[in-house]
Amino acid sequence: MAEPVVGIVMGSESDAEVMRGAADVLKNFDVPYEVTVSSAHRTLDRTLEYARSAGKRGLKLIIAGAGGAAHLPGVLAAATSLPVIGVPIDSSPLKGIDALLSIAQMPSGVPVATMSVGTAGAKNAAYFALRVLAAHDSDLKTKLEADQARTAGEVEAADKRVKKSSE
Amino acid sequence: MAEPVVGIVMGSESDAEVMRGAADVLKNFDVPYEVTVSSAHRTLDRTLEYARSAGKRGLKLIIAGAGGAAHLPGVLAAATSLPVIGVPIDSSPLKGIDALLSIAQMPSGVPVATMSVGTAGAKNAAYFALRVLAAHDSDLKTKLEADQARTAGEVEAADKRVKKSSE
Amino acid sequence: MAEPVVGIVMGSESDAEVMRGAADVLKNFDVPYEVTVSSAHRTLDRTLEYARSAGKRGLKLIIAGAGGAAHLPGVLAAATSLPVIGVPIDSSPLKGIDALLSIAQMPSGVPVATMSVGTAGAKNAAYFALRVLAAHDSDLKTKLEADQARTAGEVEAADKRVKKSSE
Amino acid sequence: MAEPVVGIVMGSESDAEVMRGAADVLKNFDVPYEVTVSSAHRTLDRTLEYARSAGKRGLKLIIAGAGGAAHLPGVLAAATSLPVIGVPIDSSPLKGIDALLSIAQMPSGVPVATMSVGTAGAKNAAYFALRVLAAHDSDLKTKLEADQARTAGEVEAADKRVKKSSE
Amino acid sequence: MAEPVVGIVMGSESDAEVMRGAADVLKNFDVPYEVTVSSAHRTLDRTLEYARSAGKRGLKLIIAGAGGAAHLPGVLAAATSLPVIGVPIDSSPLKGIDALLSIAQMPSGVPVATMSVGTAGAKNAAYFALRVLAAHDSDLKTKLEADQARTAGEVEAADKRVKKSSE
Amino acid sequence: MAEPVVGIVMGSESDAEVMRGAADVLKNFDVPYEVTVSSAHRTLDRTLEYARSAGKRGLKLIIAGAGGAAHLPGVLAAATSLPVIGVPIDSSPLKGIDALLSIAQMPSGVPVATMSVGTAGAKNAAYFALRVLAAHDSDLKTKLEADQARTAGEVEAADKRVKKSSE
Amino acid sequence: MAEPVVGIVMGSESDAEVMRGAADVLKNFDVPYEVTVSSAHRTLDRTLEYARSAGKRGLKLIIAGAGGAAHLPGVLAAATSLPVIGVPIDSSPLKGIDALLSIAQMPSGVPVATMSVGTAGAKNAAYFALRVLAAHDSDLKTKLEADQARTAGEVEAADKRVKKSSE
Amino acid sequence: MAEPVVGIVMGSESDAEVMRGAADVLKNFDVPYEVTVSSAHRTLDRTLEYARSAGKRGLKLIIAGAGGAAHLPGVLAAATSLPVIGVPIDSSPLKGIDALLSIAQMPSGVPVATMSVGTAGAKNAAYFALRVLAAHDSDLKTKLEADQARTAGEVEAADKRVKKSSE
Repeated sequence: MAEPVVGIVMGSESDAEVMRGAADVLKNFDVPYEVTVSSAHRTLDRTLEYARSAGKRGLKLIIAGAGGAAHLPGVLAAATSLPVIGVPIDSSPLKGIDALLSIAQMPSGVPVATMSVGTAGAKNAAYFALRVLAAHDSDLKTKLEADQARTAGEVEAADKRVKKSSE
Repeated sequence: MAEPVVGIVMGSESDAEVMRGAADVLKNFDVPYEVTVSSAHRTLDRTLEYARSAGKRGLKLIIAGAGGAAHLPGVLAAATSLPVIGVPIDSSPLKGIDALLSIAQMPSGVPVATMSVGTAGAKNAAYFALRVLAAHDSDLKTKLEADQARTAGEVEAADKRVKKSSE
Repeated sequence: MAEPVVGIVMGSESDAEVMRGAADVLKNFDVPYEVTVSSAHRTLDRTLEYARSAGKRGLKLIIAGAGGAAHLPGVLAAATSLPVIGVPIDSSPLKGIDALLSIAQMPSGVPVATMSVGTAGAKNAAYFALRVLAAHDSDLKTKLEADQARTAGEVEAADKRVKKSSE
Repeated sequence: MAEPVVGIVMGSESDAEVMRGAADVLKNFDVPYEVTVSSAHRTLDRTLEYARSAGKRGLKLIIAGAGGAAHLPGVLAAATSLPVIGVPIDSSPLKGIDALLSIAQMPSGVPVATMSVGTAGAKNAAYFALRVLAAHDSDLKTKLEADQARTAGEVEAADKRVKKSSE
Repeated sequence: MAEPVVGIVMGSESDAEVMRGAADVLKNFDVPYEVTVSSAHRTLDRTLEYARSAGKRGLKLIIAGAGGAAHLPGVLAAATSLPVIGVPIDSSPLKGIDALLSIAQMPSGVPVATMSVGTAGAKNAAYFALRVLAAHDSDLKTKLEADQARTAGEVEAADKRVKKSSE
Repeated sequence: MAEPVVGIVMGSESDAEVMRGAADVLKNFDVPYEVTVSSAHRTLDRTLEYARSAGKRGLKLIIAGAGGAAHLPGVLAAATSLPVIGVPIDSSPLKGIDALLSIAQMPSGVPVATMSVGTAGAKNAAYFALRVLAAHDSDLKTKLEADQARTAGEVEAADKRVKKSSE
Repeated sequence: MAEPVVGIVMGSESDAEVMRGAADVLKNFDVPYEVTVSSAHRTLDRTLEYARSAGKRGLKLIIAGAGGAAHLPGVLAAATSLPVIGVPIDSSPLKGIDALLSIAQMPSGVPVATMSVGTAGAKNAAYFALRVLAAHDSDLKTKLEADQARTAGEVEAADKRVKKSSE
Repeated sequence: MAEPVVGIVMGSESDAEVMRGAADVLKNFDVPYEVTVSSAHRTLDRTLEYARSAGKRGLKLIIAGAGGAAHLPGVLAAATSLPVIGVPIDSSPLKGIDALLSIAQMPSGVPVATMSVGTAGAKNAAYFALRVLAAHDSDLKTKLEADQARTAGEVEAADKRVKKSSE
């Protein structure tokens, strides 16, 4: 695979299943990515080193998923000038409202692009990255629009199934 | 000013004061932008026309602010393949938690990059746009990093003032 | 069956089980309805076309169920002058509070009649539609009042069972 | 004025300012209405008598506003088969989230059409009533659609003002 | 059994399992009670008749459990001058926060004594009733204090078990 | 005044304004009461002494108001077998939802009768105490029912005023 | 084992599984501790006696876990001048948000160090105690820093596993 | 003043008023402290340098206040093995619930001792630090116990004033 342009980071191995949603979308679009486990708290230096070297290593965006206090996306955003996309994960007993607020409520000057809680958010982080990358990649833009058409087709197929089963 | 590359959209005139936070940041960085009032509900066609023509007119990103049910960012994201950044505005009696959830919880395939609630979020929407644009604009990248240094300097100046007043 | 007078719309096939609650109630009252899957985001044009043609096709009310950001009822309400009834679905990790706020907090001028979260809400959407339709349909009014009596009877039967089991 | 077709009910005199939002909209559309203060708790019999006689007195819909535990809309809905529209009022220290849940979360069989919290909700209760009434009143339907055009015009005028002030 | 002095009311048969918590406590203390299913909405008249006749029939307190919009305790309190104790039940997708607010946030003049959500609340409703009744029943007071001693003993036994298992 | 039968306790002088709501209601009904400031944390021993001696000193009920973590009602309930009524006060930045949960969510065996947040709750604490006391005081019962009639009359007077002002 | 320096207290046997998280961490670091079940409400005197004698018996810190109204940590903090660490337990239907607010929102002068909800919080209570104890125990400080290195190593091992499985 | 043993850190100058609550308490007890403004995001390196050198410079505890996403306490805790006490500040439109969750919900291994929201929390952060320091400082312990007696005296004085004004 080519050099990764998107970095997917998660704070804990237990986030891997949710974050696979982001990886799967990027793979479908042949966008090279890398996956990293690094904690904002337990391996802070490694996380900062990751963020600081990300641009030089060719990454264009970072997707970071975290649950609970969920500081990972914000810490990454403080240590890079790349766009950082945050995915709140519903892994604590508070079911993700903690992660959502911890990621979304960043102070002025250090933005994190917050997605929805859980797997839908992980997928959308990848879709958002695709939108950013498509601005300078007309092939990707074409694929993205084809995918929107495909998704619309899926809704229409679902429509037929639901209509049938509700007759 | 040059042709706008960022579109700032809000659903109601009453959102203008908060959204000025986004405009001011873009102005500081000499990034051309346009400001539009268009409602997801009251002028839906105009909103869709705006979203659909946005790419052709040269916009690279859309920043959309809304309060309450706050459908504007999501509706724009459904009608364009440009990246859409959403700013939840605390204009309803529920103080922005409604807008935050309505913007953040988008379904898979139609991402909105949610910022923090209120003025800090409006500013961060612009800062996030700058990060995206800086990937292909080395001058902007330099300015952005200079601004981060300037902001750090402001924190240090605040540190001196607070230290002094607490002696 | 006669031409449908109520349109039941949902954004995703996964909402079908909850929304069956609405269909079952309408069926019990012999009110003709149609079921449609159409997304506010993934098939926006189709959704708008549905809303715009709804009145001409003879629909009197639209019932729309959605989870998460739950923009479907609001987008429909923006594109028709028919009454739109919204059902918040608890399909996201936040368990429906997101959908409830996203549907209820509509801005002035574009109302959505919000029901309770989940299956009870889907049933009530149909019961609310029956109340609206009964204003000009005395047979339906009679049936509706008979159903209220029947429901009251069920509560009384439950009372007997619970009394018995708690002796 | 002609016989009222919409009843606006509130539990307390302190709700009058918010509920005036509903009255003003109905007045603009020449829809005759009546205003009543009656409490679900302090004047329960009078409230029930109101609900039970509403249909016979010619009312087609009831709009009920309440704060806190906000039982008024639900109690009215239990005592009439007319459609009842509920407006949550942010009068308690909990700022309306209590009223929103108390009105929206009605059990199956006794629906209340919940609007947004506060003044926007009061106005929308009237707009929703207009949509219901317009189904059998083509003049009203015409007015309603003209009003939607007027509102769209207001958004466009706001757009001009905001564009101008942000130059 | 003697004539009931406490009435346990619930809005739905599905609340019976939670409300058995109240019945079991009263039974342990030989306080006669009756159990009734009656809905604030579906059998409103029966519910009001229950409340109005409660004092004459010898009841000293009413315990009412409900979920969702949970109007039952408040409606009973409006129709009797007996003390009413409310138990919020976590039966809706919102897990009881809706019922808690709907029961607790009663307006001035019509109090409901709100207990904790779910089974603990049902038991506490009975314990609270016992405290009220014990004021004029010295035997009951003695039993209640003996029960407090017994409960304290249980905590001490638990202490021994936990200490042992954590050695 | 006669010996107090109701004890009003608050954790802090800043709660006095809200708790005056309880005192005023009791005064209107000529029910003798006493007012005490005693903290669950800062004067724990004094608080426990208060609770333990309350019954012997002739108190029949305790009303306790507190904000934030709001442990006062629960601690009193643990140290007396009298009925304890809790009033959540909206004095912290979280506006009373903290106090409501801290008071309502008591564990099985140690009930606190929770009222609504703020002044309405303080008044209702007194009204609830009146209902308890009226069971053995037919004069009080008569007064309480007269007051309910008076309150109903106030609602009717409000109805006239609002009707007039909305003509 | 040496005399305990940390006391782990819980209000109920059902909290033992969560609180074992605290015990396990202390055991790993050879810090002697004791485990006690004592309720803030059901065995208040015993709880107070525990708190009052804690310092004299050699305890340096108290860790207290509780769910629901969760008064235990605050009551202990009121009766000792030792540092008290509180662990909110998600045992009620409200899933720990009640315990979190009840523990965190203590009034000025009586602090409780609140940890995260559930097992992570129990472990962190122990880790926080270790940080306090390490200030005067250089061996413990060394162990604690070695543990941080070990944890970092675990994250790196997880990184390798996740990278491998996502190839 | 002697070398500081407590470091008070805040992310922004606007937090200074709230955090003065901590400084004032420490000053009253003659515990030397230092005040620093340093942001987890805008001056991350400086913040980390602060945390890493804190122990060597003689600090025994760090008190950190922050609003919104409130990462400051957690980032400090990740970079030091000193105990870190976090104060959630209600500076965002969400009124501190965001900061409370962002500070409290730290993952296992990196504890932050969370205090209540706002000024009470800032004061309690200092009181908690005093409890920790008093373990090895018998003079401080004596002062702390004297202060508890003084505070109790204040409550008793308040009791007299409130009793008087309510006569």
